[in-house]
Amino acid sequence: MMFPPYQEDASTLSLSIEQPGLAFTAVPWKDVTIDDLFWATRLRANREHTLPHLYRFCQETGRLDAFRLDWKPGREPVPHIFWDSDVAKWLEAACYSLATHPDAWLSQRVDEVVALILAAQQPDGYLNTHFTAVEPEKRWTNLRDWHELYCAGHLMEAAVAHFQATGKRTLLDALSRYADYIDSVFGPEPGKKRGYPGHEEIELALVKLYRVTGEKRYLRLSQYFIEERGRQPHYYDAEARLRGEDPAAFWAGTYEYNQSHLPVREQQEATGHAVRAMYLYSAMADLAHECHDANLLAACKRLWNHLCSTRLYITGGIGSSPSNEGFSADYDLPNERAYAETCAAIGLVFWNHRLLQVECDARYADVLEAALYNSVLGGISLDGETFFYANPLASQGMHHRQEWFEVSCCPPNIARLLASLGEYIYAANETDIAVHLYIQSTARLNVGGCAVTLRQETTYPWNGAITLRIEMAESATFGLKLRLPGWCHHASLRVNGEAFDLAGHVERGYVRVERHWQAGDAVALELAMPVERMYAHPGVRQDVGCVAIKRGPLVYCMEGVDHPVPLHRIILPEDADLASSFQAEMLDGVIIIHAQALMEDDADWGRTLYRSQSPRWLPAAITAIPYYAWDNRQPGEMRIWFRRKEG
Amino acid sequence: MMFPPYQEDASTLSLSIEQPGLAFTAVPWKDVTIDDLFWATRLRANREHTLPHLYRFCQETGRLDAFRLDWKPGREPVPHIFWDSDVAKWLEAACYSLATHPDAWLSQRVDEVVALILAAQQPDGYLNTHFTAVEPEKRWTNLRDWHELYCAGHLMEAAVAHFQATGKRTLLDALSRYADYIDSVFGPEPGKKRGYPGHEEIELALVKLYRVTGEKRYLRLSQYFIEERGRQPHYYDAEARLRGEDPAAFWAGTYEYNQSHLPVREQQEATGHAVRAMYLYSAMADLAHECHDANLLAACKRLWNHLCSTRLYITGGIGSSPSNEGFSADYDLPNERAYAETCAAIGLVFWNHRLLQVECDARYADVLEAALYNSVLGGISLDGETFFYANPLASQGMHHRQEWFEVSCCPPNIARLLASLGEYIYAANETDIAVHLYIQSTARLNVGGCAVTLRQETTYPWNGAITLRIEMAESATFGLKLRLPGWCHHASLRVNGEAFDLAGHVERGYVRVERHWQAGDAVALELAMPVERMYAHPGVRQDVGCVAIKRGPLVYCMEGVDHPVPLHRIILPEDADLASSFQAEMLDGVIIIHAQALMEDDADWGRTLYRSQSPRWLPAAITAIPYYAWDNRQPGEMRIWFRRKEG
Repeated sequence: MMFPPYQEDASTLSLSIEQPGLAFTAVPWKDVTIDDLFWATRLRANREHTLPHLYRFCQETGRLDAFRLDWKPGREPVPHIFWDSDVAKWLEAACYSLATHPDAWLSQRVDEVVALILAAQQPDGYLNTHFTAVEPEKRWTNLRDWHELYCAGHLMEAAVAHFQATGKRTLLDALSRYADYIDSVFGPEPGKKRGYPGHEEIELALVKLYRVTGEKRYLRLSQYFIEERGRQPHYYDAEARLRGEDPAAFWAGTYEYNQSHLPVREQQEATGHAVRAMYLYSAMADLAHECHDANLLAACKRLWNHLCSTRLYITGGIGSSPSNEGFSADYDLPNERAYAETCAAIGLVFWNHRLLQVECDARYADVLEAALYNSVLGGISLDGETFFYANPLASQGMHHRQEWFEVSCCPPNIARLLASLGEYIYAANETDIAVHLYIQSTARLNVGGCAVTLRQETTYPWNGAITLRIEMAESATFGLKLRLPGWCHHASLRVNGEAFDLAGHVERGYVRVERHWQAGDAVALELAMPVERMYAHPGVRQDVGCVAIKRGPLVYCMEGVDHPVPLHRIILPEDADLASSFQAEMLDGVIIIHAQALMEDDADWGRTLYRSQSPRWLPAAITAIPYYAWDNRQPGEMRIWFRRKEG
Repeated sequence: MMFPPYQEDASTLSLSIEQPGLAFTAVPWKDVTIDDLFWATRLRANREHTLPHLYRFCQETGRLDAFRLDWKPGREPVPHIFWDSDVAKWLEAACYSLATHPDAWLSQRVDEVVALILAAQQPDGYLNTHFTAVEPEKRWTNLRDWHELYCAGHLMEAAVAHFQATGKRTLLDALSRYADYIDSVFGPEPGKKRGYPGHEEIELALVKLYRVTGEKRYLRLSQYFIEERGRQPHYYDAEARLRGEDPAAFWAGTYEYNQSHLPVREQQEATGHAVRAMYLYSAMADLAHECHDANLLAACKRLWNHLCSTRLYITGGIGSSPSNEGFSADYDLPNERAYAETCAAIGLVFWNHRLLQVECDARYADVLEAALYNSVLGGISLDGETFFYANPLASQGMHHRQEWFEVSCCPPNIARLLASLGEYIYAANETDIAVHLYIQSTARLNVGGCAVTLRQETTYPWNGAITLRIEMAESATFGLKLRLPGWCHHASLRVNGEAFDLAGHVERGYVRVERHWQAGDAVALELAMPVERMYAHPGVRQDVGCVAIKRGPLVYCMEGVDHPVPLHRIILPEDADLASSFQAEMLDGVIIIHAQALMEDDADWGRTLYRSQSPRWLPAAITAIPYYAWDNRQPGEMRIWFRRKEG
């Protein structure tokens, strides 16, 4: 390693990354077949609607043609500095999809796009449409604000996916050459630039590239970018001066914006642009994992604790402020004005998935699941063709999904996450299989050298009953770790029909069943999934006096279309019964929640705006639907935090 | 009149402006001496601190020197298009003050400033620093966006005040010449521009000018500006095309911004920039009064009803949105993000004062009083040297008064209103005296030809006991109308010590006592002034579940400095006793309100951000202070709408 002796004293850390049995490797998306009721519909929409839709927009907006490098001054549109990343994420998603669901049309598009990208690579390995065709003289002159290394990272992720999906090395080799070139430009050695990206992404991509190529240079380069970040003298100061700018005039006001205010190991709080933060923290988790770096893991966990205890929406959304597309202050979680970018929730999934491989701790899976089932899934319409950029927790009725955005990072980001969803369900190591998510599926995996086919049957998230069936050629001993979600207060387990006492078998939120498994063994997990009222910490001023409704991993909301009065006038008594029922015809099939609540009456107010008598209440039947499904019917109000009747 | 036959059918109007006894004339500020405990302190601060403070800033920022017209290209600062108005409002305030409180230093400054203004007038009568010294070629080319006619109006108001205060005609004559020149430029006649100001103001100023000069041309010009507004073909469309601009590219998006979307008589809703709206509506009320125009009055009242029933803060603030400095949607009254510009509240005082002279209806006085005692008074610090531009109803602790603003309309606007406060208290006509506000003072007035000195004794707004003593050379018969504020539910009256039954003597919120008055007669009014809980219409989503506290005309707020926890964590039970006590040493002497309330406990939450148990409550003593006095101690949170405990 280039930076092995990080000197920080790790003796105070309570956790060692070396703790046996903790580190896992995710079972790759290619080896998992999802065939459930809930996700399969979404994944089919992703394949059949989203991917062609995004391809069309990449084409129509000029993003694909930009790779022809034939832009001439004066021609509109001008290839933008982040366009490459949109194409790369679409390509990555298409590759995931092709591997599990072959499709001739899509395969041809992938080949064409790969050819376009390959042809755009420069002799020195450089690969960026904007800084080749539009402003070649500005290559590497503003890492702080421009997206060169970010685009490089996304192209690398696409190349890895392309290789994994097709076995073809063309794109992987091209991006390896680009990585080699970047490695020759950046680093601590004399003559190299000591820079690092303003928008993190390449750090985690280089780890992926290392994992498929085995080339340690890429891991070291990732380490370099992570370790150099935020050191003094500050690279962005020097870089600004080279451009003739005053570093203090940085438009974002603070280097917290891109998490370069401090070296990453010294950072205590999740700050700045939320997507950037998530990609950085994901790479930190990757490096902690690969390098057995307990100190870096501890930094990650400090940031996780801070974020999850003060800056996380109940939906798994993060980054409450539009002004920096990121974090504001502790407990500042506005609902209507929430930014909660879809990409940030996706980044939160990435980060927690990585932490979950380092330490099999259900808290990471809980956050991952909350983000996935609420913010990420809400980011796309049921038909797969419109998208949210911001994911507010309340709306007056003006916030709607769009087909595309000028800055269109979110749509292809959702597409690639959904297309690779299989990878988030299972993990394995030498001794154990871990089941992180409950999605009906079949996984082909390997535990301690033994090939196992694990069949999961469930109607989760509508029901908490899960059966796992083990198929294998020969019997073997291993541990099967099943996540007990944080939202679940009562779980029970049967192994081949016999009750299994959880006591003494739960570690960090996972129940572990170790035995000599035989083909045909079945484990039945029953997670109690009642409708539950949730309350926010008293520090969250935007949620005071309010209650949210959850059932399992799903956060519920009210929509205007189901209610006769504006939603703020509805009050949910603490003792109102919350009933649930499955509605097969509604919103592709959902469990909705009903209750007898109250509503403020305005009939006796007339023209009065203020008066000394409080409003009267009338009974009101209310309906809540899963938050992810909102804005799929007629436009209108939405609200997650219901006013409660204080007892 | 130039436009006598406004053809609209007035037969459907329920009110006639000709109704006898309704129209009043305000007793001028010069004839009223205020000597109370409450306002006298504020008025002394205005004279001794605010006026010198504002003069210094007008001087230091170059606003005074701009009148020398010696600006040269490249020199900073560039005289701005609205600078003249700041100087004019300061001058107007200084003149009011000088007439009631002679001051040699101030008198000299007034003479100097008047001389500066006089010297800046052009041979044709034109008088504007920016469009004379900086962009003379752009005179009258953008009425929509620039402030030429607005500045002219403020100079006219200053000239009228200067004449009334000093008897000198110099400035009045100069501004009359300017008005004559403007009259020669604008109007419906062939060859004239059919324009009108983007920022209303000159319309009401021309009525003032008419009243002191008797020159009907000024009244007609005001009428022209009012009537031409919003007609088709639209002047701002044509004017934009003349500048080579696309009218549809208007930066504000809609002519509702400056209330020119429709002819004023057809307008149904208070829209757009709130200060502009108030100045327009004030002029409409003036013209309705002067021209006995029932249809124009009806338009005014429609706008008043709309505003007061849907878009008025409990503080008398208006214009909830920063984006247009104005009105947003019905019942949209955000607290933390309230704009509620100080100038808009002042404009609301102006408008309601004018309506009050047209129809002696206590509802106008109620709105005037709410704006005056809360939003206007809150706009200035107790020391008179810092100012709010925006007046939110809640603050996280970052909103503070400033010494000055780049756009500094509010500070001199407060100064001129305070310096002329005497004019808002009393009015008279041929048969009646009306007392609109309760402020200890002495008024010299004339009712039906009879000179009366009216002495008012009270400690209002701290107490609802008011005594009025009549002094006059000879006894006379007239009506004395005393306002019964809308906030008061129990009033009693004694005339010379004897109970006076209000029944049958209350008209539009005023009790009228008619008798043959003798010198020494005394009327004692007792207004019950309990602490009261107030609730907002259920349509106001920002105030749901909340309660405000009022006592008399004063709205109360909590400040962080008086409380151990963030204010959103405090809950006021509906049955908590609200006690009040006078604190002589606090905030120049205020009645504060105390209660035993509850607060949400966060001690048992730890790092938990969401949980399924609602927060615990602990007892908490709370203190509320008058809203106008907030941000005069250590910086911190503020909140008007308290969470209530729903029964």
